[in-house]
Amino acid sequence: MPGEFHGQRSLHEFSVDMTCEACANTVTHILNKLGGVQFDIDLPNKKVCITSEHSVDTLLETLGKTGKAVSYLGPK
Amino acid sequence: MPGEFHGQRSLHEFSVDMTCEACANTVTHILNKLGGVQFDIDLPNKKVCITSEHSVDTLLETLGKTGKAVSYLGPK
Repeated sequence: MPGEFHGQRSLHEFSVDMTCEACANTVTHILNKLGGVQFDIDLPNKKVCITSEHSVDTLLETLGKTGKAVSYLGPK
Repeated sequence: MPGEFHGQRSLHEFSVDMTCEACANTVTHILNKLGGVQFDIDLPNKKVCITSEHSVDTLLETLGKTGKAVSYLGPK
């Protein structure tokens, strides 16, 4: 059942200012390096949905490594 | 005089697979975070010229954090 997770896993939605496929690849690369995340990237809408046990702060800091404008939209 | 530096500063040319302005911004962000570098980004030609005391390996590793295809073209 989507959205049902054990432990502290939560689904968070972020806005990330991606403009091309390579931008999305950068986000993928940086999130995979962090580890412990499952995510979907919605390039046209510049959104990234992340399921993980990491805090929102950690996720924001990680996404910020792309140098792109990032903001937290909220839980989903 | 361009190309004349004291110490171990060298000018290196890298190929970085950037496709848009935001890709170039990511490269700028990551190089600035490394520090100790001066650089020019040539987006149309997907090239980055870096003057620094860092080793080529360090620069390759840093550029690799973008998740983009990166290769060393040589000294300039």
